[in-house]
Parts: sequence; C-alpha cells; structure tokens
Amino acid sequence: MSDIVCAIARGELEAEIVLHTEHVIAFLDHRPVFKGHVLVCPLPHAETLPDLPAEAVGPFFADVQRIAAALPLALGCTGTFVAINNKVSQSIPHLHVHVVPRTKGDGLRGFFWPRVKYAEGEPAAYGSLIREALGTQPPL
Amino acid sequence: MSDIVCAIARGELEAEIVLHTEHVIAFLDHRPVFKGHVLVCPLPHAETLPDLPAEAVGPFFADVQRIAAALPLALGCTGTFVAINNKVSQSIPHLHVHVVPRTKGDGLRGFFWPRVKYAEGEPAAYGSLIREALGTQPPL
Repeated sequence: MSDIVCAIARGELEAEIVLHTEHVIAFLDHRPVFKGHVLVCPLPHAETLPDLPAEAVGPFFADVQRIAAALPLALGCTGTFVAINNKVSQSIPHLHVHVVPRTKGDGLRGFFWPRVKYAEGEPAAYGSLIREALGTQPPL
Repeated sequence: MSDIVCAIARGELEAEIVLHTEHVIAFLDHRPVFKGHVLVCPLPHAETLPDLPAEAVGPFFADVQRIAAALPLALGCTGTFVAINNKVSQSIPHLHVHVVPRTKGDGLRGFFWPRVKYAEGEPAAYGSLIREALGTQPPL
C-alpha cells in the first residue's frame, strides 16, 4: 500500500484539495460513494486513529467537524456519514476520515449490516474485558 | 425517536456501560455488528457531530480514540471500524460513535459500497462548492 496522502500533501500527486493546513489535508475521494465525498487526513503522518498523538486529536477532529458541517451547506445534502477503517479494510496506510454526503433515500444502507445477538451473560463478559483494558470499573 | 443515550446516562435504562464521565458515556450496542461493538456518546446532549460544542470536540474524540485503542487489547481483534451517521440513517437523536471490533476475514465489507465516477470537470466543481462553504481558496 502506498501512502497517497503524504504524496498529495507534498504536491507529488494531484487531488481536488478543499482544506490544507499544517495539521490537516482534506481532498475529494476520486471514486466517491457519493459526489462530494471528502477524505480528511492528519498531518504530519499518523497511520490509524490510535496512532494520532494526543495533542493532535482535538484540532484534527475540529477539522473533521468543520467538513461535516460544510457539506450540507455546499451540496444541499441532509446529513453525512463519517467513517474510519483502522487497520482492517484500511486501503491507505495513513489515517483518513471519510465524510460522505447523505440524503434520505440515497440508497446507502448506512449501518444496516447484519447484527448479531448476545447470549445471556455475554454483555457482562464483553463489558468486563473492555473495562479492564480501559482501566474503568463498575458501577459506571 | 427516543434519546436512549440520555436515559442510560440518567440511569433510567439499563446498558453495559464501559466508560462514564461528566463528558462521555460509552456502552455496548445491544444488537452489535460484532460482539464488543461500543457506542460512544457525548454528555451533555448533542444531536449530531456539527452540533457538538467546539470545546467538547477534543475531549470527546480523545475518549473515542481511547475506546478504539482498547478494543484490540480487550478482545484480540486486529482493528476497528469507527462510524457516525449524522441525520440520515441516524437511529438515535443523540450523537453516537460506533466503534466496532474488526478482524481480517470477519465478513464486514467495510467501505466496499458501490462507488461512482466523476465526469470531467466535476471534481473541480464539487471542490469549489465545498471550498466556498469552508471559506478556503485554491491553491491549497
């Protein structure tokens, strides 16, 4: 996999850039889910959301929020779908947040993937594992 | 639509909570895409990402990052899928970030929705509309 984000930021690869600062570059996905689909990427390079330095998280997501607020104004869409693939299904080894314009009836089935059911006791077991990794304790 | 997030935060509705502070509540989705699927929600109430107050963005996404980093440790998954539906396909009128554990070969087709193609000149036209809404100007 090639890091096209850093290549675009260095000017070595063309893209339709909509926002470029010291901390972020945002450009159109060249094969959009819907036209106006933007990829928002942190600068300097970070590979996944967990890799983003703590001090970069706030400024970066302020820019993600800014793009999510701008798309309805720019394109007349109703809302947005915002998504990150970390490691699995991640096609570029540079954190990129998809911000996709959405309109009711556009045919994207958002989050309507098949869902599974927990067996009795499983929610508590999974909750316990996650709380342990977070260092949190019930009662919460 | 009922705001089950505020109801859970007030203790009126049961959930398997993994993180609860003044600023955030995170709990297991009761019908997960994969077991361990967490919903991370800001407190106090905000309906969508654009509605989140500027000063809340950094602390909130620091907690989203914390959950995304914890799931592989907790569950042995490889990565995560992080997603937000703003307005369209949004099933709870309270901002909730899905953090879904992912492992290669798990069958979730991530972002493999059908893609469309821009006609010649369309990327520049869409880029221009978005830059206008953002107040940014080329060259970027």
